[in-house]
Amino acid sequence: MKVGIVGGTGYTGAELLRILVSHPEVEVSVITSRGEAGKPVADLFPNLRGYLDICFSEPTLEVLSQCELIFFATPNGVAMTQVPELLAAGCKVIDLAADFRLQDPDVWKHWYGIAHACPELLEEAVYGLCEVNREQIKHARLVGNPGCYPTAVQLGFLPLLEQGLVDEQRLIADTKSGVSGAGRNAKTDLLLCEASENFKAYAVAGHRHWPEIKQGLSAKVNKAVDLTFVPHLTPMIRGIHATLYAPLKINEAVNLQDIYQQYYKNEFFVDVLPEGSHPETRSVRASNHCRIAVHRPHNGELVVILSVIDNLVKGAAGQAVQNMNIMCGFDERAGLTNAPLLP
Amino acid sequence: MKVGIVGGTGYTGAELLRILVSHPEVEVSVITSRGEAGKPVADLFPNLRGYLDICFSEPTLEVLSQCELIFFATPNGVAMTQVPELLAAGCKVIDLAADFRLQDPDVWKHWYGIAHACPELLEEAVYGLCEVNREQIKHARLVGNPGCYPTAVQLGFLPLLEQGLVDEQRLIADTKSGVSGAGRNAKTDLLLCEASENFKAYAVAGHRHWPEIKQGLSAKVNKAVDLTFVPHLTPMIRGIHATLYAPLKINEAVNLQDIYQQYYKNEFFVDVLPEGSHPETRSVRASNHCRIAVHRPHNGELVVILSVIDNLVKGAAGQAVQNMNIMCGFDERAGLTNAPLLP
Amino acid sequence: MKVGIVGGTGYTGAELLRILVSHPEVEVSVITSRGEAGKPVADLFPNLRGYLDICFSEPTLEVLSQCELIFFATPNGVAMTQVPELLAAGCKVIDLAADFRLQDPDVWKHWYGIAHACPELLEEAVYGLCEVNREQIKHARLVGNPGCYPTAVQLGFLPLLEQGLVDEQRLIADTKSGVSGAGRNAKTDLLLCEASENFKAYAVAGHRHWPEIKQGLSAKVNKAVDLTFVPHLTPMIRGIHATLYAPLKINEAVNLQDIYQQYYKNEFFVDVLPEGSHPETRSVRASNHCRIAVHRPHNGELVVILSVIDNLVKGAAGQAVQNMNIMCGFDERAGLTNAPLLP
Amino acid sequence: MKVGIVGGTGYTGAELLRILVSHPEVEVSVITSRGEAGKPVADLFPNLRGYLDICFSEPTLEVLSQCELIFFATPNGVAMTQVPELLAAGCKVIDLAADFRLQDPDVWKHWYGIAHACPELLEEAVYGLCEVNREQIKHARLVGNPGCYPTAVQLGFLPLLEQGLVDEQRLIADTKSGVSGAGRNAKTDLLLCEASENFKAYAVAGHRHWPEIKQGLSAKVNKAVDLTFVPHLTPMIRGIHATLYAPLKINEAVNLQDIYQQYYKNEFFVDVLPEGSHPETRSVRASNHCRIAVHRPHNGELVVILSVIDNLVKGAAGQAVQNMNIMCGFDERAGLTNAPLLP
Repeated sequence: MKVGIVGGTGYTGAELLRILVSHPEVEVSVITSRGEAGKPVADLFPNLRGYLDICFSEPTLEVLSQCELIFFATPNGVAMTQVPELLAAGCKVIDLAADFRLQDPDVWKHWYGIAHACPELLEEAVYGLCEVNREQIKHARLVGNPGCYPTAVQLGFLPLLEQGLVDEQRLIADTKSGVSGAGRNAKTDLLLCEASENFKAYAVAGHRHWPEIKQGLSAKVNKAVDLTFVPHLTPMIRGIHATLYAPLKINEAVNLQDIYQQYYKNEFFVDVLPEGSHPETRSVRASNHCRIAVHRPHNGELVVILSVIDNLVKGAAGQAVQNMNIMCGFDERAGLTNAPLLP
Repeated sequence: MKVGIVGGTGYTGAELLRILVSHPEVEVSVITSRGEAGKPVADLFPNLRGYLDICFSEPTLEVLSQCELIFFATPNGVAMTQVPELLAAGCKVIDLAADFRLQDPDVWKHWYGIAHACPELLEEAVYGLCEVNREQIKHARLVGNPGCYPTAVQLGFLPLLEQGLVDEQRLIADTKSGVSGAGRNAKTDLLLCEASENFKAYAVAGHRHWPEIKQGLSAKVNKAVDLTFVPHLTPMIRGIHATLYAPLKINEAVNLQDIYQQYYKNEFFVDVLPEGSHPETRSVRASNHCRIAVHRPHNGELVVILSVIDNLVKGAAGQAVQNMNIMCGFDERAGLTNAPLLP
Repeated sequence: MKVGIVGGTGYTGAELLRILVSHPEVEVSVITSRGEAGKPVADLFPNLRGYLDICFSEPTLEVLSQCELIFFATPNGVAMTQVPELLAAGCKVIDLAADFRLQDPDVWKHWYGIAHACPELLEEAVYGLCEVNREQIKHARLVGNPGCYPTAVQLGFLPLLEQGLVDEQRLIADTKSGVSGAGRNAKTDLLLCEASENFKAYAVAGHRHWPEIKQGLSAKVNKAVDLTFVPHLTPMIRGIHATLYAPLKINEAVNLQDIYQQYYKNEFFVDVLPEGSHPETRSVRASNHCRIAVHRPHNGELVVILSVIDNLVKGAAGQAVQNMNIMCGFDERAGLTNAPLLP
Repeated sequence: MKVGIVGGTGYTGAELLRILVSHPEVEVSVITSRGEAGKPVADLFPNLRGYLDICFSEPTLEVLSQCELIFFATPNGVAMTQVPELLAAGCKVIDLAADFRLQDPDVWKHWYGIAHACPELLEEAVYGLCEVNREQIKHARLVGNPGCYPTAVQLGFLPLLEQGLVDEQRLIADTKSGVSGAGRNAKTDLLLCEASENFKAYAVAGHRHWPEIKQGLSAKVNKAVDLTFVPHLTPMIRGIHATLYAPLKINEAVNLQDIYQQYYKNEFFVDVLPEGSHPETRSVRASNHCRIAVHRPHNGELVVILSVIDNLVKGAAGQAVQNMNIMCGFDERAGLTNAPLLP
């Protein structure tokens, strides 16, 4: 099957390529970049020398429409201008940016600063958190691939919320991300000399992943969920660690470990660790796994959930491939079966 | 003034030396280490070549008692066996370990696993959080230097707690530390190949700094304070970032920024950042400062405080020197006036 | 095919496991560790949860001899005590340590400090630098897998040496390694706080890889080769960068680029970069590739070759698997076809 | 004494500020930046909050000429356009960029791409390698502060060259720098995600510090010196490690250790380590020291010298302050006496 990638010069594009060159069912037949058109992909990403011989090309409908499925790895606001014509041409689309994550165009405009270019598609678009929306994804033409923080946070909170055990109005997500989450942008604060040997919070006043998480959790449990969301920049390349706090509504004993294990017992990519564990981000590096541990310190009212993913894989390109596998009827694990890289 | 250091082969000992060799009022006349006795200090810490000519020596009372003040930079449980005779010999003592931080010997035994060797001194010992206990420190013979996390957490929570604005039973401290906080111990999980490019929580079930923080906050506000404390290991050498969550008890508007600025307006080492700021750990690297920012996201019920220190300075050796300065009537800033190191 | 690993708790053992769990032709049926016997492998290496269900076991002949091929990922000096009986039992053996790299038992004793336990096997043992000794490896029972530095250095120098273009008595190899090259040992100088934000040379007076490189190059060109070898520790987990200096013996023009491209034109794992390139270690991370660039600065007498590998893959476990593939008649690339991980 | 800094938004400017705010003899009265004029310096460099209250200003002659001494921390090619009028106004000038390092304007043009704006000053300008040109610096109006690599390389080679012991035509400098050497520029290849966990050589075909090193060494020994210079980018913030190779011209025994110790016996900032040592870059972090070790592996013909500095201190701002101290008759160590930061 031929697939295309629009906007292949960032880290999510590079990661898509890394995964797809080993995927048993697909061939990357086109990868576009206005800025790098004509340049061999392997010149920009030397790890791909010997794995991919194509050059970046201009993103034209003619070329793209020959693919069965198109990944958008573009900045926010780009996909929404091109998706309608690609759908019309019969392509399936997975957007790794935020254009098709939020269902309400007003919320989109508020957080992304411009009006949505195709609000009529928002209802059709499926939110691609695979473990939650697998059935809709199977029949989707258009998938909005979740953000990295929202993936780790939602997978961590869902078992508790669905049981109705916690106060869904007082959730806290204290999240930490490696620097690749900020993309391959030449910004001063992402320089090694600024971001290494340093730790800081950012966007405490408001982050775009906050409405996405609230929407996702609320939809799944049919209740308005509220949370405080504080992201932090961590001096490493890959990895997200979400530390989640949820106040129990009940006072009695409850087997949290069992609830989590049951909830994810059939999910290959979600691993509930044994009681008392502390998942490490490196235990999922370069893989599509999410590892979760659940704690109740001092047997108090507050549940603490630890959830880790690789932000570029389960938090971006890996989940996009998982979505593709589901949409196209492939083995859901195809291309995603390599063990994480440690050390 | 002659000072001595017992147990000078760890990071807090090395940091004490680095600070004290430039201190205008003191001379390090003895530094002990059973394992390295006879070896020049600069062989172990090559940064000190040209700054310190002495060798490690055996920790004997005869040698130590010639110093006016002794710093213990030993593992937990060592200082308490030697402090009584040093006090009797007329020395002042600052313990950088935990032996004199907790006032209740039963709590000490519970968390540190052995009975306290001199419980009769616990009442006299002053908890050396300088900004809180400055007056008692002035007249103290024996100071228990605070833990690194407790310093960052208490300085962050105190202004809010003292105003009675928040529910003191539902505090959360999500803290992140550089690896030097774990000491200079040859443990597998502290290896570069294990700890770099990795992020994890640890000791979620219970950490020794938890009772210390509760004791300190409770004592200051005369109420039992409870909190959830989750520490994390961050892939960098120095720095602590505490992200603190406190639910407001009131619903009306309150000028949090003003409260924090007023509270610390006379404190050289505590810097309240402008509204909307996110302090970075590197902004205090190699210095005795604590920088704090206070947020109220979406104007909701939860206050979020960000507090950063260098764990080896304000979180250990620097605060110990600050304590010495107060105890000995020196300028409180002596030896601690160099600007932080950035980048 | 069943394979076993002796000594699976270090980084080369972990890396063997990571590669072998995805290998299409083999099954890891036993992995031994005296210290961890009975413990699930995934408890020590959490990245393998879901990929490998076996426990560490005691290294007994009975268990091991049921495998067709045994990898030794043990410290130097262990394999030589067990290999004779395994060969006698019909197993093939690949030793990732140094026991079967040097052909002269006196040289071995000089550099490794103990007498060789089975000098009679040294002649039979094949030095497993695949690109050099492929034919002998095909028929080998016993392979000494090359050291990490020797792999990068020899692949870099060989094209020049074989052409007789450079003075083989005045070679210099200035090499830089990530910290994983020192193994998973709890040593102070490998701690994150000691090895990160730091760069140093070590073993300038003499390193065990020096005689190995000299032996390998001399054997290949049938001349005594001499070199100066200076290794350095670099603050990163994986990667070796060898910067090689070779003085030209001739004065005329010579097409170095062409010589290198011709030499490696049929080698999948050795990639000669375009003229003027500077290979990055991350371009081969987690892969079995070696990337090489050749320079002649200011058109002078000195050739500068840059050669990079991942020390744990082409420098250890990957080359061991490549050797197994050759010995067992598998596709030489089997299990080694994933693209390098970047970023 | 009032000093000014032109171009204070890069790392050398920031480092100058960090050092000068603690300098006992000077006050930074002006710091200019066209881009940031009007902004408090501490907004850009939060480490300086509480240490420096001034704002960036426009670089006008009127303001600058009120300073006795001006540091240029601007990109190459800026200082040469402003220095003549500042000298005319009676200011002393130290340029931390390359404008006054090379004596031959043609060489300057070749390597920096533009004609020199004030070639008439090149003869007067003193090359500010303090240990070499101390006497001229004392009487200089204009100092060209050396590059970072040239400082580490020249201090390492000089004792050998001055003794005439080595072939001055076949020197090699294999140098490794932390990323701050590339400045505070928002370039993709300096991002944490590109530069960490990575090692690479660069500019092997030719680097601007090559003619500077050749000029400096040749001038000191009155002979044309030639060398091969290969710089590498190392995944850390600060530090340069130069590994230097020099072939002995003589065959007899020579006490290299003694030669180095004698040569630098009166130099506070140059430390010759004991025989067999390997200096670490962190042993000089945040300090103005250069630490050197000299080796003769296997007692062969090649001498290996290891030389480390902090590129931002002895390699830039620290040496500039040392130059100022010499020019102005201050204690040469003033402002530069803090012990290096370790860990």
